[in-house]
Amino acid sequence: MNNPAEPAGQAGFRAIDVIRKKRDGHELSRAEIDFLVRGYTAGQIPDYQISAWLMAALLKGLTRAETAALTDAMLHSGEVLDLSEFPAAKIDKHSTGGVGDKTSLVLAPLVAAAGLYVPMISGRGLGHTGGTLDKLESIPGFNVKVSLKKFREILRSCGCAMIGQTAEIAPADRLFYSLRDVTGTVESPFLICASIMSKKLAEGIDGLVLDVKTGSGAFMKTDEDAAFLAELMVETGQRMGKKVVALLTDMDQPLGLRVGNALEVEEVIEVLNGAGPEDLRELCVELAAWMIHLGVRAGTIGDAKKLAAETIRCGQALKKFRELVKLQGGDVACVDDPSKLPRAKSSLDVTSLASGYVAAIQSEDVGTACVILGGGREKKEDSVDPAAGIILHKKVGDRIAAGEKLCTLMYNSETRVARAKTLMQQSYRIDDSVPTPRKMIRRIISATE
Amino acid sequence: MNNPAEPAGQAGFRAIDVIRKKRDGHELSRAEIDFLVRGYTAGQIPDYQISAWLMAALLKGLTRAETAALTDAMLHSGEVLDLSEFPAAKIDKHSTGGVGDKTSLVLAPLVAAAGLYVPMISGRGLGHTGGTLDKLESIPGFNVKVSLKKFREILRSCGCAMIGQTAEIAPADRLFYSLRDVTGTVESPFLICASIMSKKLAEGIDGLVLDVKTGSGAFMKTDEDAAFLAELMVETGQRMGKKVVALLTDMDQPLGLRVGNALEVEEVIEVLNGAGPEDLRELCVELAAWMIHLGVRAGTIGDAKKLAAETIRCGQALKKFRELVKLQGGDVACVDDPSKLPRAKSSLDVTSLASGYVAAIQSEDVGTACVILGGGREKKEDSVDPAAGIILHKKVGDRIAAGEKLCTLMYNSETRVARAKTLMQQSYRIDDSVPTPRKMIRRIISATE
Repeated sequence: MNNPAEPAGQAGFRAIDVIRKKRDGHELSRAEIDFLVRGYTAGQIPDYQISAWLMAALLKGLTRAETAALTDAMLHSGEVLDLSEFPAAKIDKHSTGGVGDKTSLVLAPLVAAAGLYVPMISGRGLGHTGGTLDKLESIPGFNVKVSLKKFREILRSCGCAMIGQTAEIAPADRLFYSLRDVTGTVESPFLICASIMSKKLAEGIDGLVLDVKTGSGAFMKTDEDAAFLAELMVETGQRMGKKVVALLTDMDQPLGLRVGNALEVEEVIEVLNGAGPEDLRELCVELAAWMIHLGVRAGTIGDAKKLAAETIRCGQALKKFRELVKLQGGDVACVDDPSKLPRAKSSLDVTSLASGYVAAIQSEDVGTACVILGGGREKKEDSVDPAAGIILHKKVGDRIAAGEKLCTLMYNSETRVARAKTLMQQSYRIDDSVPTPRKMIRRIISATE
Repeated sequence: MNNPAEPAGQAGFRAIDVIRKKRDGHELSRAEIDFLVRGYTAGQIPDYQISAWLMAALLKGLTRAETAALTDAMLHSGEVLDLSEFPAAKIDKHSTGGVGDKTSLVLAPLVAAAGLYVPMISGRGLGHTGGTLDKLESIPGFNVKVSLKKFREILRSCGCAMIGQTAEIAPADRLFYSLRDVTGTVESPFLICASIMSKKLAEGIDGLVLDVKTGSGAFMKTDEDAAFLAELMVETGQRMGKKVVALLTDMDQPLGLRVGNALEVEEVIEVLNGAGPEDLRELCVELAAWMIHLGVRAGTIGDAKKLAAETIRCGQALKKFRELVKLQGGDVACVDDPSKLPRAKSSLDVTSLASGYVAAIQSEDVGTACVILGGGREKKEDSVDPAAGIILHKKVGDRIAAGEKLCTLMYNSETRVARAKTLMQQSYRIDDSVPTPRKMIRRIISATE
């Protein structure tokens, strides 16, 4: 049946026909996808038609060409930075989100210190997943809300800059994402790919390293799902002329030993000082090496790793971090002495009920416990306590005796501490035998066939 | 990922969870479906969430229990007539829509004259399909916009009443249908079933005869699709304690010889006079017989057919029609002398380009030609010319010589007559050999296993 009531829009298309075409499993043309994205961004196509289309796209899937067209249309819905005047490659990293993942704060200064530009636009935390902006803001004075003009100045001056989404960058993605969030259409690899890639490619970068998390604490629970998303993003980036590599990395337990904003900044400074937990150090060096390699600062990954490690060892990475904090208005005294970061007034040790080996730590539970303590958001409008969080004393593979400390809760408000404690006890699985170790870097996807 | 931003609504449900559940192919509970229908009708759930759910329901399907729950929720979104005081069974008929289908106008008076009550609430035409209300309104003065109170009075007085949708009956269906119309979610048998059955069962009927059209001119192009929808509606009606039977009937060519509002009323009066085209007569008697049988006015279908035929032969059916027209304010002179119905000022004969046998008549093209001549609507807001339409001179199986008349176009506005003529010539397929006759009644579905 036709819908003669709806007049043909831009380029002669009608939203209803594009919805039906996807519903029936046919491939949309670039012009049809462009029509949807432009029409929605301009307020000419209503929410209810886009949400029907999103559900059809989620259930029927998109082809690679459709995914690239959607990415491109969202990317060009706003400003695309032109950083070609900068005298070295512009490389960014994106993670699909995890618990305790503070690698961005290490990578931006580290890779900038290694001679590349890192123009990093990040998000806030929601639910069990933390956000780079919240971590940065736990440094008193650190300003993530700067204009694109200022962003460019900071980038020119120090080689890296870390800010939040601005209205100018990929406005279509913001509209699509808000709608997906309330219509059950978040969980589509095609839509996730277009959302991530449109925002990142609008940064004017030459290359992108993707950290696709896999495991119980990740959005993608299996290596297969994570690899599918990773390949999709790598191919989409390549179709748009960018160098893209994806690392599938483990999120079967939180990354590092600290979860919570100021606590994570402390751990970042440890890593930049050449210390810090081994899993976090390993991942930072690996991701930095791929960024350096894409930016052609090192011919092999081996050389790139050496350069990353050396940049930390000689203190240049930490120096660059201090420079960044200063340029963005943060208190550099906190970098020099992390004990000056916001500290929680109270703490509570959580002990093990059993003896054995830590077999697993449910990252989602840890993230949720952090939210409960005030260190994260349940709703977008919630404010975050920078000091609240959790310090883990045991990780997977560690031996533990009943009554020994698993972790310490850090908090300013007593209200829900008991609930957080229960969650943390539940999150640890204790077994009799030593667990088989999981590799941190599970797979590297650098090109599609 | 949770959507913690949305608070739980009625009965603790959240729309996002219900959308996700259907998206993932799970069966919804009656309470969840009720929550969606109530929430949307009350304006508490926005369009964009319902449209995402509708697309998920279309692509994933609904179970029989879900379909019944949706029907029931929409049925109870408004007033449900209680006609239990009436001293005989209340039986209605619903057709899925075709071209030249004027059976309702024959059946209501015919079945009322046979001793049952026919409380008929109908719709208007849109696109190539005509509507009962437009046909009735071609009788000068006939008022289809009467209150439910008046409807009940007319029904009591004459045994039948024919009106349009009122705001009190199944308001949820109106909201859902408007949204489906613009979101590509019309074409789901489950949603079609719930829409039809909720409106019909709100009429307070005991039994319902469904005329499910199949063929090139029908919404359901194949017998399989038509049977699927028919079985779904029969089962849904039975689950709700009603007697329901479905007839799969041919719509591979228009029904009868006249298409267009006043032209169809003329043909209705012919049939009520015991004359008229054979296919229309046959279908009317068959449908009337099933209505009479469901209303227990005849023990067997054979007896019911005899009663229907006799009710026409003895003039009671026509007399009842005259009574109905009078009660609803129409000019009874048009019943006594159909030449007093609105007549088009101009006519144009369309001749055959080839010789042979009529193998098929594309009903959709005929319906569209009628719209082009002014006899139907392209958009909901369009007004309809009661006199415009098409008189067919040849039907499937008829012999035709090149240059002989296929049909006559009746119109008041010249503007698009040439286009209508071309469409009509295209709509006739002429072959060398006699076509295999198609049965009018293709299948009867009276119970599900």
